[in-house]
Amino acid sequence: SSPAHPIPVTLFPGDGIGPEISDSVKQVFTAADVPIKWEEQYVGNEIDLRTRSFLTWENLESMKKNKYGLKGPMATPIGKGFRSLNLTLRKELNLYANVRPCFSLPGYKTKYDNVDLVTIRENTEGEYSGLEHVVVKGVVESLKIITRHASLRVAEHAFRYAKEHGRERVSAIHKANIMQKTDGLFLKCCKEVSEKYPEIKYEEVVIDNCCVMLVQDPSLFDVLVMPNLYGDIISDLCAGLIGGLGLTPSCNVGEGGIVLAEAVHGSAPDIVGENKANPTALLLSGVTLLRHMDLEDKADRIQEAVFKTIAEGKYRTWDLGGKSTTTDFTKAICDHL
Amino acid sequence: SSPAHPIPVTLFPGDGIGPEISDSVKQVFTAADVPIKWEEQYVGNEIDLRTRSFLTWENLESMKKNKYGLKGPMATPIGKGFRSLNLTLRKELNLYANVRPCFSLPGYKTKYDNVDLVTIRENTEGEYSGLEHVVVKGVVESLKIITRHASLRVAEHAFRYAKEHGRERVSAIHKANIMQKTDGLFLKCCKEVSEKYPEIKYEEVVIDNCCVMLVQDPSLFDVLVMPNLYGDIISDLCAGLIGGLGLTPSCNVGEGGIVLAEAVHGSAPDIVGENKANPTALLLSGVTLLRHMDLEDKADRIQEAVFKTIAEGKYRTWDLGGKSTTTDFTKAICDHL
Ligand SMILES: CC(C)[C@H](C(=O)O)[C@@H](O)C(=O)O
Ligand SMILES: CC(C)[C@H](C(=O)O)[C@@H](O)C(=O)O
Repeated sequence: SSPAHPIPVTLFPGDGIGPEISDSVKQVFTAADVPIKWEEQYVGNEIDLRTRSFLTWENLESMKKNKYGLKGPMATPIGKGFRSLNLTLRKELNLYANVRPCFSLPGYKTKYDNVDLVTIRENTEGEYSGLEHVVVKGVVESLKIITRHASLRVAEHAFRYAKEHGRERVSAIHKANIMQKTDGLFLKCCKEVSEKYPEIKYEEVVIDNCCVMLVQDPSLFDVLVMPNLYGDIISDLCAGLIGGLGLTPSCNVGEGGIVLAEAVHGSAPDIVGENKANPTALLLSGVTLLRHMDLEDKADRIQEAVFKTIAEGKYRTWDLGGKSTTTDFTKAICDHL
Repeated sequence: SSPAHPIPVTLFPGDGIGPEISDSVKQVFTAADVPIKWEEQYVGNEIDLRTRSFLTWENLESMKKNKYGLKGPMATPIGKGFRSLNLTLRKELNLYANVRPCFSLPGYKTKYDNVDLVTIRENTEGEYSGLEHVVVKGVVESLKIITRHASLRVAEHAFRYAKEHGRERVSAIHKANIMQKTDGLFLKCCKEVSEKYPEIKYEEVVIDNCCVMLVQDPSLFDVLVMPNLYGDIISDLCAGLIGGLGLTPSCNVGEGGIVLAEAVHGSAPDIVGENKANPTALLLSGVTLLRHMDLEDKADRIQEAVFKTIAEGKYRTWDLGGKSTTTDFTKAICDHL
């Protein structure tokens, strides 16, 4: 039952275990008859080091043309003057919001069994401006930039998301008691947008307090919106609550409906080729992508199959305390479809 | 058995429940025959608003003269142009390291039963520089400042602390993959200092990853050292793991042996005067102060009495799920001395 006109979707398999978990996604999507065709794009370590360009013009064009993409882990060589590929993609494609639904996986026990929240992170500015300089020897400055434009659009995204997903509350996370001007502007924008959504509750929570609340009772939160660095920190903290980065989907959203879903875990070079990788994060990221493509039924089916397989526990991968190979885990999911 | 020459110690009772929990500390310290005399200093909301000075010259002088101090919560009116008293004290007294031992309290159950770590936070610069400005309308900048001087001295403090307290490892927490120059300098200084302490293991952990590790298994950490904002966030996260800010001691340490221990929780205006406040954080902060004063035996005795009282569970305060008044909890501790 292949559709006549499958929708092209860019696939960046990425480094390390990226190709293995991408294969898994391809198999599951095929088993679920998802009407898309993958356009594979290679980046990162596969590319000739001498060009110093890990990301090609074609990589970006593919995303710009297709608007939909899925990406595996990309390892940027550290300290060698290469820019993070993740950041470059966010910047070049203007992916202004990073959305991470974070929920307790049915049947997979952690210390927390009631997590169901969404972190929405401003993805283009803040502490990630890249503006740094040495003032005098031994004195260095970094600039954090907050703009009204970027704050409004991520706030807008958060409230729209809350509304569309039947969520009740948006919490803006900040440190405006210290950074009164930057975080103050961010809060002002969130507040402004909140007034257009009277049906959604709005609150402001200082980031240190937010951490105490999250580790004590994550059900205190619903949708969280925040500047870039806080989003980096809080979204990973939340992932930790439900079992780690190997289980949490992530989706980058930009202007004009461009969407790049991604696994946010590392490329796990230590287990490459051992058929041990857990494709869950990439699969669930794929699911969030399908929802953006209005393929809700496919998204639901795949998500359910992943949940069932993990809940049953028979085919859990190594990182989840199981003994299953990537192949068997993937097959088990397909069997549930 | 009052000593002939008690050591003067500055006491800032602080706002809200501050005076109540300070009374509790005074009673417990008296019961333990601690050879100090309190020099009380009033700050904050008690002071005439018209002076706009919440902190007087005398307040600072008392600390400078005595070198040892204990402080309750101080509420700074937000958004009224007042500077945080906490920050002003840190800055004026050059309290460059904030040290927070964080451990599971015997007999007080949380999701985590194996926490035993210490966060050491650079306390004077970083994102707390207070340097912010509007570039053009809708575009705001904050400066994060990292200096070699402040990074070296906090790193030195962390390694010395590890050595003196028989700790095995120091983890420097950073985001140098993004802030290569500022956090890079911080790491460079930590690494440099680590080389003088070959018996202490040294590692570098990215802050987002650190959060995942902390919420999954806090026993992965021993001593953590980090720039100001990360310290603010991580130390509160850690407090959350063991029951909240009402249970964790904090101690600010400066040049020339100046030490200001403090409760880091809020002033809890909602329960003021109700005899409901939990003095544990201030008591345990007092204990860390006594250790700095070489009154280890007194410190041990008081700590044990607090632990026992909480473990027995009969006299727990309201925030810990108990029904005891501050008075009864305090009396129970004194009875254990
Ligand atoms: C790889 C790194 C640059 C990135 C970030 O800090 O944003 C990662 O932690 C993430 O959250 O996507
Ligand atoms: C009250 C506030 C300014 C302070 C800080 O951010 O440092 C507090 O959170 C702390 O950790 O002592």
